[in-house]
Amino acid sequence: MNKFSKNQLQRYPVYLKYFKELLDKGVVEISSPKIANELGYSEEQIRKDLQAISDEPGRPKRGRDVSRLIENLESFLGYRDCSNAILIGAGHLGAALLNYTKFAEMGLEIVAAFDSDPSKIGQIVGGKTIYPIGEFEERFAKFDAKIAIICVPAAFAQDVADMVIRAGCQGIWNFAPGHLNAPLNVVVENVNLASSFAVLSHRLGNVK
Amino acid sequence: MNKFSKNQLQRYPVYLKYFKELLDKGVVEISSPKIANELGYSEEQIRKDLQAISDEPGRPKRGRDVSRLIENLESFLGYRDCSNAILIGAGHLGAALLNYTKFAEMGLEIVAAFDSDPSKIGQIVGGKTIYPIGEFEERFAKFDAKIAIICVPAAFAQDVADMVIRAGCQGIWNFAPGHLNAPLNVVVENVNLASSFAVLSHRLGNVK
Repeated sequence: MNKFSKNQLQRYPVYLKYFKELLDKGVVEISSPKIANELGYSEEQIRKDLQAISDEPGRPKRGRDVSRLIENLESFLGYRDCSNAILIGAGHLGAALLNYTKFAEMGLEIVAAFDSDPSKIGQIVGGKTIYPIGEFEERFAKFDAKIAIICVPAAFAQDVADMVIRAGCQGIWNFAPGHLNAPLNVVVENVNLASSFAVLSHRLGNVK
Repeated sequence: MNKFSKNQLQRYPVYLKYFKELLDKGVVEISSPKIANELGYSEEQIRKDLQAISDEPGRPKRGRDVSRLIENLESFLGYRDCSNAILIGAGHLGAALLNYTKFAEMGLEIVAAFDSDPSKIGQIVGGKTIYPIGEFEERFAKFDAKIAIICVPAAFAQDVADMVIRAGCQGIWNFAPGHLNAPLNVVVENVNLASSFAVLSHRLGNVK
């Protein structure tokens, strides 16, 4: 299960998007050096990444079949199945995610949202109803969801995480800043804007 | 400049947030084993991370001074200065970022936004005016900004990146999916939701 590093897993959607663009342009074969030149990864890294998910070997002089790579990547990434998720915290960021139309392509469907703000309850955002957070545990089981997307302010994130874990969530996609404590059998993936900006800022030489 | 790995840089805001929470609770000293236990990083990693930004050595029996660590981290991360940024693409995600109130704490200020949608031009979102994209090059120089935040659909992201680079942007914070081509002297940091979800999905065992 931990055969793939986090950095490696993060590269696969980038490959997939690039290969789809190639196919749209009528390119049917691609070699590692060309990919390296375009995406800025090393040739060795690319060969290793693609070998790990491909069902046929690369051909040294001709490269790999683009359609086949797309199939292999979509299958590997689980894009042909779909995971249901519920979202908690329908503020600005939560609403942006509810309105995002590309999640289906990534095998993710947000089926409902929850919020504590009475003025939001009952609203429909991006086609999803916002329910009161107090009804979470009762409603959760009906949604066949195993992923919770947490978009609440940082101060409430741990309480919300504890609640969704109690309700049986197996995966948390956390957009609140900071660390969440969770049992080892719950997968937590953080989208931390402060962490991402720290990399940009440091590389810009903005730091003392 | 490349003394710090990306993963290491991403951990610093997580430490900072944790130390501020400790200080709020009245905790004035902290040891690496305690941090390891709370944040799930290894003790060795924590010692190395903190040594790299600290202006005093850790004391084996007593740990480190929390206030001092906060000062060192804020200084290292450039949180006491502020970088101006402009945002391009004031759709759902762009608007969420314009409304996000915590960027100032991270040393980032979005000073203006640009969009191509006539219905958005002239609106004020999160206190920032939305200007027509056609006026970008003319207005950009006046904002003293060196960072562009790209929130346009993927199909337009490269064109927008080319435009902001021509105008003199040194850093791009890219929220559009996919790879951007940029000269080596321009720093590109991607927030790729598909990449983040790929990690969650794979670890959940969602994949074939």
